[in-house]
Order: sequence, then structure tokens, then C-alpha cells
Amino acid sequence: MKFYQNWIGTTVEDGVCGKTFPATVPGNIQLDYANANGWGNVSYMDNCTKFGALEDLYWIYRCELDFEQKSGERVFFVTHGIEYEYDIILNGEKLLHHIGMFTKVEKDITDLLEDKNILEVLIYPHPKREGADVCRDQADQSAKPAVEYGWDWHPRLLVSGLWDECYIETRDTYSITDVKTSYTLNADLTKAEVEFDITCDEDTEIEVTSPDGKCVYKGKGPKFTLDNILLWWCNGQGEPNLYKWKVSNEKHTAEGHIGFKQVKLVMTKESWSTEANFPKSRAVPPINVELNGRIVFAKGANWVNPEIFSGTIDEARYREMLVFAKEANMNMLRSWGGAIVNKEAFFNICDELGLMVWQEFPLACNNYKGTDEYLAVLEQEATAIIRRVSQHASLVLWCGGNELFNSWSGMTDQSYALRLLNKLCYEYDRSTPFIATAPLMGMGHGYYRFYDMGKKESVFEIFGNSDCTAYSEFGVPSITEMKYLKEIFDEDTLRNPCEKSPWELHHAFQAWGVSAWMSLDIIDEIFGKQDCLEDYIDRSTVLQCQGYKFIFEEARRQTQCAMALNWCYNEPWVVASGNSLITYPNHPKKSYYAVQKSLSPVLPSARFEHFQFKGGELLRAELFLLNDSPESVSDTIEAYIEYDGKCELIGTWDTGETGENTNKRGVVLQYVLPQVDQTQLIKVTLKGKTNENEYSLLLYGKEGPKRKFLNF
Amino acid sequence: MKFYQNWIGTTVEDGVCGKTFPATVPGNIQLDYANANGWGNVSYMDNCTKFGALEDLYWIYRCELDFEQKSGERVFFVTHGIEYEYDIILNGEKLLHHIGMFTKVEKDITDLLEDKNILEVLIYPHPKREGADVCRDQADQSAKPAVEYGWDWHPRLLVSGLWDECYIETRDTYSITDVKTSYTLNADLTKAEVEFDITCDEDTEIEVTSPDGKCVYKGKGPKFTLDNILLWWCNGQGEPNLYKWKVSNEKHTAEGHIGFKQVKLVMTKESWSTEANFPKSRAVPPINVELNGRIVFAKGANWVNPEIFSGTIDEARYREMLVFAKEANMNMLRSWGGAIVNKEAFFNICDELGLMVWQEFPLACNNYKGTDEYLAVLEQEATAIIRRVSQHASLVLWCGGNELFNSWSGMTDQSYALRLLNKLCYEYDRSTPFIATAPLMGMGHGYYRFYDMGKKESVFEIFGNSDCTAYSEFGVPSITEMKYLKEIFDEDTLRNPCEKSPWELHHAFQAWGVSAWMSLDIIDEIFGKQDCLEDYIDRSTVLQCQGYKFIFEEARRQTQCAMALNWCYNEPWVVASGNSLITYPNHPKKSYYAVQKSLSPVLPSARFEHFQFKGGELLRAELFLLNDSPESVSDTIEAYIEYDGKCELIGTWDTGETGENTNKRGVVLQYVLPQVDQTQLIKVTLKGKTNENEYSLLLYGKEGPKRKFLNF
Repeated sequence: MKFYQNWIGTTVEDGVCGKTFPATVPGNIQLDYANANGWGNVSYMDNCTKFGALEDLYWIYRCELDFEQKSGERVFFVTHGIEYEYDIILNGEKLLHHIGMFTKVEKDITDLLEDKNILEVLIYPHPKREGADVCRDQADQSAKPAVEYGWDWHPRLLVSGLWDECYIETRDTYSITDVKTSYTLNADLTKAEVEFDITCDEDTEIEVTSPDGKCVYKGKGPKFTLDNILLWWCNGQGEPNLYKWKVSNEKHTAEGHIGFKQVKLVMTKESWSTEANFPKSRAVPPINVELNGRIVFAKGANWVNPEIFSGTIDEARYREMLVFAKEANMNMLRSWGGAIVNKEAFFNICDELGLMVWQEFPLACNNYKGTDEYLAVLEQEATAIIRRVSQHASLVLWCGGNELFNSWSGMTDQSYALRLLNKLCYEYDRSTPFIATAPLMGMGHGYYRFYDMGKKESVFEIFGNSDCTAYSEFGVPSITEMKYLKEIFDEDTLRNPCEKSPWELHHAFQAWGVSAWMSLDIIDEIFGKQDCLEDYIDRSTVLQCQGYKFIFEEARRQTQCAMALNWCYNEPWVVASGNSLITYPNHPKKSYYAVQKSLSPVLPSARFEHFQFKGGELLRAELFLLNDSPESVSDTIEAYIEYDGKCELIGTWDTGETGENTNKRGVVLQYVLPQVDQTQLIKVTLKGKTNENEYSLLLYGKEGPKRKFLNF
Repeated sequence: MKFYQNWIGTTVEDGVCGKTFPATVPGNIQLDYANANGWGNVSYMDNCTKFGALEDLYWIYRCELDFEQKSGERVFFVTHGIEYEYDIILNGEKLLHHIGMFTKVEKDITDLLEDKNILEVLIYPHPKREGADVCRDQADQSAKPAVEYGWDWHPRLLVSGLWDECYIETRDTYSITDVKTSYTLNADLTKAEVEFDITCDEDTEIEVTSPDGKCVYKGKGPKFTLDNILLWWCNGQGEPNLYKWKVSNEKHTAEGHIGFKQVKLVMTKESWSTEANFPKSRAVPPINVELNGRIVFAKGANWVNPEIFSGTIDEARYREMLVFAKEANMNMLRSWGGAIVNKEAFFNICDELGLMVWQEFPLACNNYKGTDEYLAVLEQEATAIIRRVSQHASLVLWCGGNELFNSWSGMTDQSYALRLLNKLCYEYDRSTPFIATAPLMGMGHGYYRFYDMGKKESVFEIFGNSDCTAYSEFGVPSITEMKYLKEIFDEDTLRNPCEKSPWELHHAFQAWGVSAWMSLDIIDEIFGKQDCLEDYIDRSTVLQCQGYKFIFEEARRQTQCAMALNWCYNEPWVVASGNSLITYPNHPKKSYYAVQKSLSPVLPSARFEHFQFKGGELLRAELFLLNDSPESVSDTIEAYIEYDGKCELIGTWDTGETGENTNKRGVVLQYVLPQVDQTQLIKVTLKGKTNENEYSLLLYGKEGPKRKFLNF
């Protein structure tokens, strides 16, 4: 039986406790403190900066234990995760000291109990590597999310505390304290040899129910074979079939599920030829997901922590966001290494929705030097993460962390931390692929804006001329919608976007170069100077929609490409400008719907050479039928162009039969654009039986950009 | 006490033993059989083909045990390696079955002994993967040298048997059966914490003597600290200092040595910029050797098995070849994965001579699929190899095997075998770098001829325009000198080089494309048709010398390049034409001396744009002072040109101070080449105080190539 406790918190400064305040568990103690002191919404104005004063404090959680102990029961303290370094103290005696937030810790306290019991958790100050600058560098000797130390879309705001479940548990000999399942599929993936590893002193019985509700196994033997397996498929490829299991004895029951799948990273045919010339190098590493023997184009986004206060995330919070991801036709989320490794609910929902998870370890953009101390914590944390997450059908890829082989990180294939992670993944979960970091050779990160002001190229040229095996990060920012800006800025601030103001704190300026993410320079360059903030917001939204449309569809069109994941899906607070598809906490942007369309399983798609055109230029639209579905399709596609209020048929294309999970490259339609007076967005629409698709392109009027546009 | 036995061998066909013959141990049973049957020198004519008939036989080694057992002693059968699958049978009882040739196997037979004891080793037929073509593909599920199955410089000739030491050993409780040493160096590499792991039932004493002959430790404690460490240096960078140790007790003594060093693979500055453009990939992996904190240019060659019958290789055989390698100014040998992992003597001599060893596991040019059976043998063999070889100062790099990430192999970073090897190296020897294969990204293999007939480019253009981080394989063949050809061909054969003859068996044709390695087409293209074999030999020798000179020196000149290892140093039999620097068994070619010069620690060097010039062309010679020595140097270099019997000063360059292990890029000297009547080799000589250097270039006469040349 689990007994959740009522906790209070307090600061400890120079050994002296401060005032107590109510502490929410799971949660973060800094948020409890802020709430108790009336600091207000962290997203508002410069509220986030107040937390700087808390960084180097110790904290205590305290409760008087409240539970019922039946005769013969043992009493355990159990935590699923406390951030980051802590002592557990019972009635003034230290029970244990622990470093690391991803390891489940439990302690039998039965023999230490008195009539009245005070349990305390002493939280140490956040780890900061000595001598490091005040930035993410401080995180490079710990397994704490680096993002808390400040990122270009996340304020510096360090949190800690009882961030995952924590309780007192009474146990008897019948208690089932852990169940781990494993399986081996036969060659044609029709049979599974299943094995249960159950931690319980008494006998248990296992019952397994198939996705269609039949009991397919009931018995005491922990090893058995299941026939006619209904495989787990990702979104768009089939059902995310889950088998429910129940392990029980006369007193207790544990429940869970298994999804049977086989996943590999394989080479595209094109990737094998990347070694062509002498002196010959190697072929690029494989990054194409093969699920259950079927090559699947991986499409989705980078998932970051949904909350600054990650302790507050619950099942409902995960579910609302993940349902949107599924509805956007995504099949993969990259759970990025700078953030938390998510709680169980995240993976359970991904299992249920068919969202494949690329899971990174907590390393990002730093050189995590392999000292003995660091490696010991990393090994403990990674082992706990692997053993927990590998239970989930949704897990398809382990990754050491983010951008570790780039100059700004400075790690290499020789770094002990990454060799250790490869070793641990091999030992505990070798059937799931492992990559040391992203990007690997052949893969690409960036570009992160619609337009490169230096090279005078938009994402249409940049990605149209790239040949990456995977686009695992790319971004186009938009300025946040006015109604959400109003939530975070007062009226004066709202009307005066500038550096060194709450705009900068909310990443509008100086986040990536001087002008990003607001990127007014790019809007001025493409559309000309705008009159008002509302217009800048509108224009940035057009660029984000059309930019993401182009990149996602171009990635699908390119034969060597296996994956497209934009940076990023979500944001942990309301930013002033950013690359996400969802405004905090869960408001889809216009770009969300644009991406949803571009990720449709079956989609007529057109490749344009540019976003901007001049009158008289030849518009070339190369047509494709993109088919990420497991059925073959055929269609007749009509392409229309609209401008100056007129609509004209450019041409049609009969696609013929297009096989399952195969794209068809079609005709190039050509159209001489007219000279128009006024700069305007023109529309190209593709209409087929299977789906429709619509693009906006920019046609300059005779006098170049103007302040107002048609079609806005 | 060790007792070596007298063995006889016999075939077993359909369960019936053949005639017996004397068997040499260590050795190979196929050679014993051939000798007993008078097959003659394996290199002669088509003698090598006779061995095909032996491939699928079982073999038995048999001896009547001869040893003295003192009271209280136990008796052991010990083998350091038997190729490849075998049973050990004592007095008709099977003692053990084993797969794998690199694992030391021992068995206590004391309680099984009778008055007269017959020991037998039953050798199984060579492993051949079912369904594989008759070529190296057959080796892709075993840890046997793939080269035996046939290569472009090695006949198909499968060997097996007691290839390393094998004996009866009597042991008492004082016997010291194993000693392993390990150490940790402090940050400034002045102190070593040493630990001995001694297998002995009784107490032992350790005595350590420094390279300068002083006793630096004497005691029973297996852990101790040594101060003022004299580090082990590779050839050219300092002394290969070795500390001798003796472990002894009242009855026995074991001896060995430790060389203290720290080795890392690090990035060149240039390598960090290989991620430059968006979408950004990763920087190439590090391949620059840092020895004891000092960046060292790695120069040397690919080392292959020195004998087809690898069982016959002894200390003397290794030593004569390795001494030549050291004298060629080499500091590294890549012990290639297609061949054997060498015996202890190889590593001991490399320790002594300061030759760094890049050691590969027995995987080459195949897709070693990670079946449970294969992985079990690989784990056992790799563990034995790592635990043995990591004891040697000369070991600087572990590598999974040869060209595994290339299309003709088909393995990837996800292959279980390579993830397993990374794991084992991390566990047993993490301080030595590990790479999964060569080439990695940025590294280059090939080109392997002087001239690319398709692209009309010589190695001067190919390598002059490359920017690899390491040239870990490159080759230029020459036709073998006449006196050695005479050893392998009869007079008729000698005078008629052609396909489908012993010439082809000896790799003159159809080895790499149709014309390699003899490459008469290239000689014809560059020099015109030759009159006789002797002339072709001469011309091919010029190309090999000048080709290797250019590539080795160019690799040293390129700032992003960290390594140059030619393919290959040696050859396991007399080939008719090949890329090695040493003709079998140990005759340096002219190219050996050319390379020796090009690898001089301090060397004036000139970069030429081409090998071939026309009259009137501008010859540009970009001068460098290459300094791979640990001292700074300066020099004044004079450049001379010689043609038509005349010698002329082109110019001089005052290098100024050139730091230790640093190259200086100097002036470009220009010289208008004359119109000459007769095509000829012209000579460019660089003369300095530190060293001299000399190049031959080809100047075409007015009528193009002629059959005779000056300077030959």
C-alpha cells in the first residue's frame, strides 16, 4: 500500500532554516517557494529572474509520516526521482546520500521507526562545475538537464526537489515490487518468446490479454511463447497494438503492457554510395528506421520539457500535447538530451498513440569529461533510464545526447561518457539502436531561420540543395500571437520590442545572433518595413508556415533522406518568438496546421526553387505524390495558381500506381509569372482525390516590397 | 616446468586416419603435410593450388606425453593458440572442445594420467559459412583470418593447427601462472601508480628495474608508486623506455616489462571546422595520435601476416622485419584485421623498438552478422586479445577491423559485433583509443596505383587535391625484381607474363581490376611501350619510388593530416607484382629506401603539381621543411634541377626557426622546363644542412614517350 505524505518545505541558508511553506509533491521546491512568496506567473515580464537568488541554497522537504502498518508488513521510503543531490533523513538520522534524479531509490525504514516519525529530504545546491562560466558549461559534470542553466528558448532557471513520485510503501511477502518484461521475436515476427522478471517473495500468476481482448496466456511460468503476434506499429503504419498483462497473487496485482516490435537503423540505398571517390572514406552511418521489417520515413519534431518546473508535469499535461502530435501526422519525437528524461506517463501515452521515441541521455552541447566521479553518476543514471524506458514499445532509438560531436561541445567518438553509454545500451537493450549523438555524418542540424541574411538564401534554396540522410533539427521562428504576448508583457513592454527588456528575456533578441528569434531584419528584407507589431506577427507566421511546409515536404521528397524532425514541437513557457509549433502550454500555431498538412500520409506536393519571385520569372513546380502510407495509391493531381484575385489551372498529372511507403516523382509544371503592380502572396493549390495541398509564394510588384499585401 | 612434445600428424577423412608425418609445433599442419609429401616451395609456380584439396579434412596431432612430474606437482596441458576449432583428447577421452585461435587454453590433466599417455588434438575443417561463395565471404561467421580465404595479394590457402606455443607444464603451489600489470599516470605524467595482478598460490616478491638499470621497487605489495617516470616514446620522439620486472618466490620467477605512456586520439584544429555549413553535420572523428601529451604525426605502414603459414613465424622472423621498419623511420604499424593477431614476440619487439601498433580484431571486408554463436566466439577471442595485447607499451589503438563501413562489407555503426568490441575494449582497456573500423569519416583508403587510367590523374594530382585526416591505406605497386621472380617462375613462365598462369596466381593480373598489380597499361601510358620485362620492372620501380615519396611527403605537408600508412609493408609470399616495401621474406625494395628518406624526421620537401611535364611547362616546386622531430630546427635549402646531364640551381630558401613536431611552408620555386629531344627523367635535389632529398620527374621529349630514357 502506498501512502502519499503532506510535505512542507524550507530554505537552508548558512545552516539556518527559513520560514516553512507548503510543498507540492511531485513538484519543484523553487516553485513552491515562489508561490508562497507571491512571485506570480514565471512567464510574466522578468519574473523568471527572481529565481537566480535561490540557486545556491539548500532546501529541506519535511513531513511527519502518516501511514498504516499491518502486522508483518515492512515499511519503505520510495522515490522515483529527486533532483539532484540529496540526503534522506529520518528522525534526525541520515539514511542515505544520493546523486542523480533518474534513479528510483528505496529504503527499508521499518526498524528505524518510532512513535512519531519526521522524514526530511535535504536538497543540495545545484551542481555547478567549478570555474565554469555562468551558463550551461556549469552542467558539464552532472546528469542534470543542461537546459535549466539557460538556453536560447529557456530562461536560466534552476530547479530541484521531489520531481517524480515519492511515498511510503508498506509491503508484505506478497508485494510485487518490480516487473520487467522482455521478448524475442522469431524471424517472420509472428511469434514472441516472452519472459517476465518478477520481484516478489511469493508465487505469482501472469495473465496476458491481446489487443483484441483475448486472454492469450495465463500461468505461473515466467517464460512462454505467444503466437500470431499483433505487432506494435507507429502512427500511420498500423495499430499501436499493446498486450495488457496482469501479475497477481492472493493479495496484490501489478499491471502493465507490452508492445511487440522490431526496430533497426538501416542504410538507404543512396547512403552506401557516399564513399565513392578515392581516397575512399566510409559510407555515412544508417539513420533510416526499419520498423517490423518495413522502412518508415520518420517525421515529427524535437520534444523539449513541457514545463520549466518539470516536477509539475502530470499525465494530463503529457496527453494533451501528445494527442496533438499524433493528430499532426507525426510518428516520431526526439526527446532532446538537454531536457529531462520524461516520466512514465509520457512513454505510456506514446506507446498507446504509436509515437516512436528517440530518447537521449542527459548530455547536451557540452564536453562531459570522463572523470571517475562523473562516469559513476552517469552509469547509475543511464542504467536506470535504460532499464525503465526499454520496457516501452515506443522507444526506437537511444542517443548519447545533443550535438556532442560539434565544435561548441568538443566531445569525440573517444569520449568515455559516450563509449560507456554505448556499452550500457548494448548490455541492457541491444535490440534498440544506439547513436552517440546527433547529428552524425550525413545528418543535418539547422538552418533555424527562414532566410540566411549573409548568403541571401531562404530555406527553399538551403534545403533544396542539401542531401542529408536526416534533418533531425531545423527551425523557422514566428513571433508569438498577440493574445499570448499580452499574457506575458504589460502594455508598454508589448508596444516596444527591444533588447535588454522582457522581450530579450523571452528570446526575441540576442537568442541566436542579435536579431533572432524575432528576426525583424528578415521580415524587412523579404516584405519591406512593416507598420505595426501585428503585421510583423502576421508576416513571421507566413514565413514559419511556408518554411516548415517546404522543409518537411522537401525532406520527404529527397530519396536519400530518412527523417525530418523540426526544432521544436513545444516550449516550456510563453516565449516572445520561437520555432515551436505549439505555444505554451498547448495552443497550436498556424504552423502546426501547415505541418499537419505537410505530414499527411498521402500528399500531392510541389517543389519550388524559391519562395520569392519577380514578375516575368518562370515558376517551376515539380510535382510529387508522397506516400508514407502502407497502401499503394494513385491519383490525378490538378495544379492551380491564384493571384490578383484570379485562379488558373497550370496543369494536371496522372500519378499512376504509387507503391506503399514510396514516393512518385512527377512532371515539372511551368508558368510564366505576370508583372503585377503590387507585391502579393500568390497561391498554388494541388487538388487530388487523395488530398489537397496549398502553398503561398511571394510575387514582387513592380516597385518591390510594399507595406501591405493582398491575401493577408 | 614446461615440456615440449614431439608431435606427429595425420589426416582424417571419412573417419579414417591417413599416413602419419612429423608435425612441427608451433606450425601449421598443412605445411607439415606438404613437406612430408614433397610439394615443394609454396611460392613456386602453382604449388599453392595444391592445398585446395586439404580444405575440408579433419587433422589429428598426436604425441606420447614426455615430462617429469615431481611429487606434489600438478600437470597441465597448455596451448597459446590452436587454429581454429578443435578437441583435446587424452587417452581416447575428450577433455574439451574449443572454437577460436587467439585464446590461451589450459587444462589440469593430473588426475587423468596413466602410465603411458597419448594426447591428441583433433582439428576440425576450416569454418565456412553455409551458402557463401568460395571466397572470403566464407569467413564472415568466424574469428579466423579472412585473408586465408584469398585476397588480392594472398593466395587462397587455408591453414590450421598448433600455430602458437603448446606444451605440458608441471606446476606446484609456487608456480606463477599469470602476471598482469596495470598503471595510472598522474596529470603531468611523472608518477605511475602501478598494480600487479599475480596468479600464484604462494607469496611472491616484485622487483622493478628502471630503463637506466636502477632498482626502483622491491617488495611484496602489488600496488606501489613509481616517481620520475621515464616515459615510453615512439621511434623518433625519444627512447622507448621499458621498466623490467621480475616476480619471484623461493622456487619460480616470471619476468616482463612495462612501458609507461599515455595515448589519446585527438582532433586537429582543422578537423573541428568540417561541420561548417548548414545543415550542419558533425566534425570528423579524431585520428591524431597524442603520445604523452605530444601530438605525433603517425607514419608507417600496414603490416600483414609475414607468412602464409603463420604458425612458423618466430621471434627472429619478426625481429628482422621490425628492425627494418624502425630503420625506415616508421613509428606506426597497422596490424591489419584480415590477418592474424600476432604472437607475443611481435609486441615485445615493437615495445623495444618504439613502434606504435594499431591493432585490429579479426574482421575484414565482410558483414559479420551478430548471431549469438558468432558473438560468443568473438567475445571470447576479443577478450583474450585485449587482455594480452593491452599489456604492451606499443599498443596505441584498437580497431574493430578493416573497411567494415564500406559498401563491399556492409556493416554499420549498429552492427552488434562492433558494439561488442567497443564495450570489451572499454571494459578491459579503456585508456587505449578504440575505433570501429578504418576508414572512418575524413580518413582515406586508396588510391592503390600510380595512375588512374579513367581520370587521367597520377597520385600527384589525387593526393595533392585530397584533404584526408589520415591516409591509412594507399599503395603504388612495382613488379618484383627479376632475381625474386626467378625463384617463383620457371624460365618459360618468366618470359610470358599473362593471365591464367602462375603470374595471375601471384597477383600480377586480375587482382584489382584486370591489369593490376602488374599495371602494364599504366607504364605504357606514362613511358610508352617497353622492350622487355626488365624495362617494365625498372619503370614500375620508378613509379613506386616516386609515388610513395609524393604521398608520404604530401601527407606530412597537409596540415589537416595526422597519419600516413602505406599499403603495405610486407608480403607473406613472393608476389609477381605488389605494393609492399619488402619482398618476401625480407628484401627491401628500392621503394623501401625512397620511403625511408621521405619519413626522415627532418626533411626538406618539395610539392610538385604533377609527375609528368612537357617541355616549356612551368615547374613549380613548393618547398617545405618537415620536422617530425622533438627539437626545433632551421636550415637553408638549395634546390637544384638536373636534366640532359646538366645541373642548375633553381633557388634557395632560408627556413628560419621551425618548431618541434612542426612543419614550415616555404617559397614556391619556379622554373621553365626546356624543350628536350628525348623523354627523360629529370632530377630535383634539395640540399640542406639537416638533410637532402631527391625527386625524379618525367619530362617528355618533343616526340612524346620513347622506349629508352636517360637516368635509368
